[in-house]
Amino acid sequence: MTTRTHETEIVSDPDVPLVRITREFDAPPDKVFRAHTDPDLVVKWLGPRDLTMTVDHYDCRTGGSYRYLHVRGDDEFGFHGCFHEVRPSELIVQTFTFEGVPDGVALEKLVFEDLGDGRTRLIATSLVDSFADRDAFVASGMETGVREGYERLDELLAK
Amino acid sequence: MTTRTHETEIVSDPDVPLVRITREFDAPPDKVFRAHTDPDLVVKWLGPRDLTMTVDHYDCRTGGSYRYLHVRGDDEFGFHGCFHEVRPSELIVQTFTFEGVPDGVALEKLVFEDLGDGRTRLIATSLVDSFADRDAFVASGMETGVREGYERLDELLAK
Repeated sequence: MTTRTHETEIVSDPDVPLVRITREFDAPPDKVFRAHTDPDLVVKWLGPRDLTMTVDHYDCRTGGSYRYLHVRGDDEFGFHGCFHEVRPSELIVQTFTFEGVPDGVALEKLVFEDLGDGRTRLIATSLVDSFADRDAFVASGMETGVREGYERLDELLAK
Repeated sequence: MTTRTHETEIVSDPDVPLVRITREFDAPPDKVFRAHTDPDLVVKWLGPRDLTMTVDHYDCRTGGSYRYLHVRGDDEFGFHGCFHEVRPSELIVQTFTFEGVPDGVALEKLVFEDLGDGRTRLIATSLVDSFADRDAFVASGMETGVREGYERLDELLAK
């Protein structure tokens, strides 16, 4: 099966310290949503191809929390947060900290829009409390990881 | 015992959609912190005097969550969120939703600064993703509730 390649749009908001990522998928909202909430699926696509993801815990429900590691050779990168709200096939609101910057925290909102015909638009926003931190995050090369992760998600959804 | 009255400073940040509340207390950080984490203490001071607070759950630890109600006569106001990080006597990072506006969410950071001599400065910031929402929140009369709540906390800490 051939997977159509969708563009990942990454926009830094001009007014507030927020990044907005928009991406369409050739799968219905419930399937795209499940790929974000089931840790056995999340490990198969989240992040770039050259990292291996291992889950410490991933309790994706309103009031739950998560922690996972991205491993490349001897390097380990830890991430953790809590799930503020999880509405099936519609919305995930969560916090996010990269443990390399332990005092940094982002508020993330993932909205799953039903486009019909088995297609979904995902709008993922990430809000922090300073423009400098937001711009450093965007400049850190997150773009490559995000695009490559969503290509892996395309492949997973096509199976 | 006479409780000294401290001023509560509430500032809307000019650059990002954030409110910053600064308040000093005549008690050491561990005591002010515990008044924020122990639900049996929280119910005694959080919010204005004319509301009664009841706790649905209040699991104040990294990865925990909370929900509580403020009740005035027949009116019930629900609030919930998750605790992103809880560092004893130092820091609480949590999310916050007033259930009257179920799609609204704030990222809150409470920093407990040790001023020595058994005194603490609390800096509480609340970040949202739009200036309009931030300004509506400030205009909603939150100021009265915050000031009165901290006066009640003064009284509790003096016991």
